[in-house]
Amino acid sequence: MKRIEVCLTPELLHLYDVRNKAVVIVDVLRATSCMVTALAHGAAEIFPVASLDACRKMKAAGYQLAGERDGLKVEDFDKGNSPFEYLEDIAGKKIAFTTTNGTQAIEKSRDAPILVIGAFLNLSAVARFVEQQPHSVLIVCAGWKGRYSLEDTLFAGALVEKWQSVGTLDCDAGLSALHLYRAAKENLAGFLEQSSHVRRLNRLNIHRDLEFCVTTDTYDVVPILMNNRLVTNRPATRGPQSG
Amino acid sequence: MKRIEVCLTPELLHLYDVRNKAVVIVDVLRATSCMVTALAHGAAEIFPVASLDACRKMKAAGYQLAGERDGLKVEDFDKGNSPFEYLEDIAGKKIAFTTTNGTQAIEKSRDAPILVIGAFLNLSAVARFVEQQPHSVLIVCAGWKGRYSLEDTLFAGALVEKWQSVGTLDCDAGLSALHLYRAAKENLAGFLEQSSHVRRLNRLNIHRDLEFCVTTDTYDVVPILMNNRLVTNRPATRGPQSG
Repeated sequence: MKRIEVCLTPELLHLYDVRNKAVVIVDVLRATSCMVTALAHGAAEIFPVASLDACRKMKAAGYQLAGERDGLKVEDFDKGNSPFEYLEDIAGKKIAFTTTNGTQAIEKSRDAPILVIGAFLNLSAVARFVEQQPHSVLIVCAGWKGRYSLEDTLFAGALVEKWQSVGTLDCDAGLSALHLYRAAKENLAGFLEQSSHVRRLNRLNIHRDLEFCVTTDTYDVVPILMNNRLVTNRPATRGPQSG
Repeated sequence: MKRIEVCLTPELLHLYDVRNKAVVIVDVLRATSCMVTALAHGAAEIFPVASLDACRKMKAAGYQLAGERDGLKVEDFDKGNSPFEYLEDIAGKKIAFTTTNGTQAIEKSRDAPILVIGAFLNLSAVARFVEQQPHSVLIVCAGWKGRYSLEDTLFAGALVEKWQSVGTLDCDAGLSALHLYRAAKENLAGFLEQSSHVRRLNRLNIHRDLEFCVTTDTYDVVPILMNNRLVTNRPATRGPQSG
């Protein structure tokens, strides 16, 4: 029977074997939420890169440069890390993306046979996708600079809850994530008020990003890593417009 | 103001600076529960060592050899890792102790100015101790072979709950631990039924160890690392006898 496990931060990835797993990368605030949003609104592809310099080199190949360091947009980049920047004027665009945590988690998981991107925005789509593929599942929480983060763990708990009829859970991290999600799910934004990342975001005055990122099932797309690019086979879907 | 943080496994310790922290090591099932029990019943000292061979070398210096690997007593050792082995015939004894997770966590935290041993058995005593010393607090969960474990996180949550009037909590791991503890505290053993370590212990048929280890405040001692030995200044206390 297929299993589901949760790796609470990329710093623990060496304890797991990703080579026979379907890996779900999650960085709710905000990298994977941006990626889902961009592909849902028709971006051609997202090229995740770990370093700022590797990102800059993609400019010549026709990529828009996107991402953040420490939650802030990089000065010479085209886009930052707010999902509201990926709602319009994105169709057909190629994006090179680098963030503090999310793209690092992808980098460390590249040996997985299947790697997809999860966020609350595409929770049910990801759940259906991983149920249908043949591998056991490893959810990799991006965390914050190697440390545990509550919001990514809550997403893991949400995915574990949907998984329970499909396979087994033999992992204390997944069990804890499930407990936490059940305590939080009626009011995710409220539950996250005390989390360190939300307090960082509040200092950046981007509370509306939080509200957007904890909305469930806005989109039906699953970004999949193929040839080092995140793509989706689905056509662009309708969703919220910027405002 | 003093802070409290939780390191969810020793594999994440490089992300924290222990050199200005009071570190609380916890390995509820069962290393730190045994250590507390042994010192409460009058053991002279516990010498924690990371390897089996380092432990064996202490025999010539008059130490009893104690500990486990993968939950099982080491064949040529005097004692295993059940707290019931540390209730009687322990007064004045010197113990060399090595376990899969707990002693490794101590090893990695040796640079801390204060290192104490926590378990549910001495929860309130540890809380009082760390409140009174000058440093911020780092709870180091021993986990299982580097991975996160639920039972150690629940202890961390219990200590965070007691801490809240003393200092600040700026750590998602501590926040999650607190949520989990509040969900679990009415029935810790029941809450842990699905945890991977408890299922391992159940296979070893030592459920009574679990019941013992999740009992709160049986003892009033705080094991403190001094000159590489765990000692306590308090006289042996009365507590449960083996049975």
